Amino acid sequence: SKSYNVALLPGDGTGPEVIREGVKVIEAAAKKNNFKLNFTNYDLGGERYMKTGEVLPESVIEEFKKFDVMYLGAIGHPDVKPGILEKGILLKLRFELDQYINLRPVKLYPNVETPLKDKKPADIDMVIVRENTEGIYIGAGGFLRKDTLQEVATQESINTRFGVERCVRYAFDLTKKRAKNNKLTLCGKTNVLTFASDLWQRTFNVAAKDYPTIKGDYVNVDAVCMWLVKNPEWFDVIVTDNLFGDIITDLAAMIQGGMGVASGGNINPEGVSMFEPMGGSAPKYTGQNIINPIATINAGALLLENIGEAKAAKDVDNAVIKALESGKIKSMSAGKMGLSTTEVGDLVASYL
Amino acid sequence: SKSYNVALLPGDGTGPEVIREGVKVIEAAAKKNNFKLNFTNYDLGGERYMKTGEVLPESVIEEFKKFDVMYLGAIGHPDVKPGILEKGILLKLRFELDQYINLRPVKLYPNVETPLKDKKPADIDMVIVRENTEGIYIGAGGFLRKDTLQEVATQESINTRFGVERCVRYAFDLTKKRAKNNKLTLCGKTNVLTFASDLWQRTFNVAAKDYPTIKGDYVNVDAVCMWLVKNPEWFDVIVTDNLFGDIITDLAAMIQGGMGVASGGNINPEGVSMFEPMGGSAPKYTGQNIINPIATINAGALLLENIGEAKAAKDVDNAVIKALESGKIKSMSAGKMGLSTTEVGDLVASYL
Ligand SMILES: CC(C)[C@H](C(=O)O)[C@@H](O)C(=O)O
Ligand SMILES: CC(C)[C@H](C(=O)O)[C@@H](O)C(=O)O
Repeated sequence: SKSYNVALLPGDGTGPEVIREGVKVIEAAAKKNNFKLNFTNYDLGGERYMKTGEVLPESVIEEFKKFDVMYLGAIGHPDVKPGILEKGILLKLRFELDQYINLRPVKLYPNVETPLKDKKPADIDMVIVRENTEGIYIGAGGFLRKDTLQEVATQESINTRFGVERCVRYAFDLTKKRAKNNKLTLCGKTNVLTFASDLWQRTFNVAAKDYPTIKGDYVNVDAVCMWLVKNPEWFDVIVTDNLFGDIITDLAAMIQGGMGVASGGNINPEGVSMFEPMGGSAPKYTGQNIINPIATINAGALLLENIGEAKAAKDVDNAVIKALESGKIKSMSAGKMGLSTTEVGDLVASYL
Repeated sequence: SKSYNVALLPGDGTGPEVIREGVKVIEAAAKKNNFKLNFTNYDLGGERYMKTGEVLPESVIEEFKKFDVMYLGAIGHPDVKPGILEKGILLKLRFELDQYINLRPVKLYPNVETPLKDKKPADIDMVIVRENTEGIYIGAGGFLRKDTLQEVATQESINTRFGVERCVRYAFDLTKKRAKNNKLTLCGKTNVLTFASDLWQRTFNVAAKDYPTIKGDYVNVDAVCMWLVKNPEWFDVIVTDNLFGDIITDLAAMIQGGMGVASGGNINPEGVSMFEPMGGSAPKYTGQNIINPIATINAGALLLENIGEAKAAKDVDNAVIKALESGKIKSMSAGKMGLSTTEVGDLVASYL
């Protein structure tokens, strides 16, 4: 039978607890569908950094390239200065592995509470495609006269036709495969970012010609935020740059019920991809077995889809839906589920 | 009796209709409080641009500097390419008049519907202070190999200690005056924008020492968006840069009930300031007398406060609240108010 090599990065805080349940569920799906998953553990994260001073060795990046896929819990440690782990591990992996797509399916599952009035699961069902290797995320910039009253700090967004086009085309292809309205919305800020957003818009328009059945749409990022809250049903697929993507995917995570359910992937369609829950390492819940593993399980479904096991991915998704429909999980929030982390994992696995 | 000179910019689309009602109400407040408002009309906007090719003559900017305050309806025309009027009028005024504060009070008024579940007026009551003259809004950037497959587009964010500090100190001063928790939240993205957001954070920390009674807080922009939807009651005053400010003020406008009620000001504390509703020119509603003028009336209250007529400002605010409490306005959306634009203006004025 087929087998796949998975690099496992449980990470910090509650990361190991949610990854444990994610592994449990995708292994059950693998068994059911007659393939094997071989996991290799990597202890990257704040704990390792505190102990060794090492963030992410080059040799490890080379090892990752040989895996079929990667599965991440959470990276983040309260004692490490902001930026070190984010730039040293999370962003570095995206750049070095050229995971140029950040994929965020946004779906309101049954029995999951949204903070929005009058919105049902059918109203919140979209995918956000975020460019993941360019823009203002590249770290270009500097200081002049740092720490004086005359200080200047710059931060530069660099965008290439190459990088924008592969992202936009990925989004068009994805839109074509979805059942909804076949609408792709470009999110930018053309009236202000007259260079960066202009390149995005022109590239989008060129690509659109190859997808005549898809309605191409443009909405400013500020309006996208408004609509996500007022009319999420207007969206099918949204494509956007790295920074706007960061903002709107987190807003979207909230409207779909929060960090307990939101998951995503950092995808290199020609290389190795990494899947993860959107939530952080949640230090205050660590070790209590009360964190919600559903987001990580959902990330597991995305992982299975990515390695080509679409049927197993669908099985996991259905198992999550059945677990939610059972009414046994009282809330999506840590500590309020009415079940432990382990019990939620067992419940989902029981439907496989 | 005292008198003030007001430059009036009704602008495009429904701008003139809402400004008409705004003027009606602030004149009533002036009469009640024994001062005079002298209005001078300026026909800036898309209509003028289409006719004359002129956007904003330098001489007009010089004229504006002599006014006590400016009052804007809306600028925006469906036949004008995005960016021309925004950069040529709206942003140009902010830069040339050094209106370095964009002030956005966010308040849920009685009988106004928010798209959020279980949130009452007491839960949505904050002010957002947006830096209005720096950051990625300055238009720095360019193209390399435009319109080729090798194109590169850059967009640069430039931030100065001078510009950040005056904004941050304005926000601290404002927080001190408010009744709430005396909490000021800095919104940035320190883990990624390690130059720009770092300058903001250091400047914020230095200023904070002069305001020992105010709790200084830091939240990443993506988390701010989540909290605005999930826990808006956590915010008192938020201070942020130009781009993040653009995004979070629009999201906040939506949670307070949308463009029918949201207003703001472009403020130069040492010069001339401009007040405006947040909504656009709404071409499709133009000339129908069905657009909601409340946001423009609220902007009128901010204008009165700015010229030093705090009592009149409070009167307008109270009149708006009474009009809303009367239950006569069925909805905040254009065409669904149950009253015409004129009637809503009359209703508010009747309480003065
Ligand atoms: C941790 C941080 C660097 C990261 C980002 O900003 O991209 C996170 O917010 C995300 O969205 O994956
Ligand atoms: C019209 C546009 C240039 C402007 C901005 O982005 O600042 C608007 O969205 C605003 O928030 O006042």
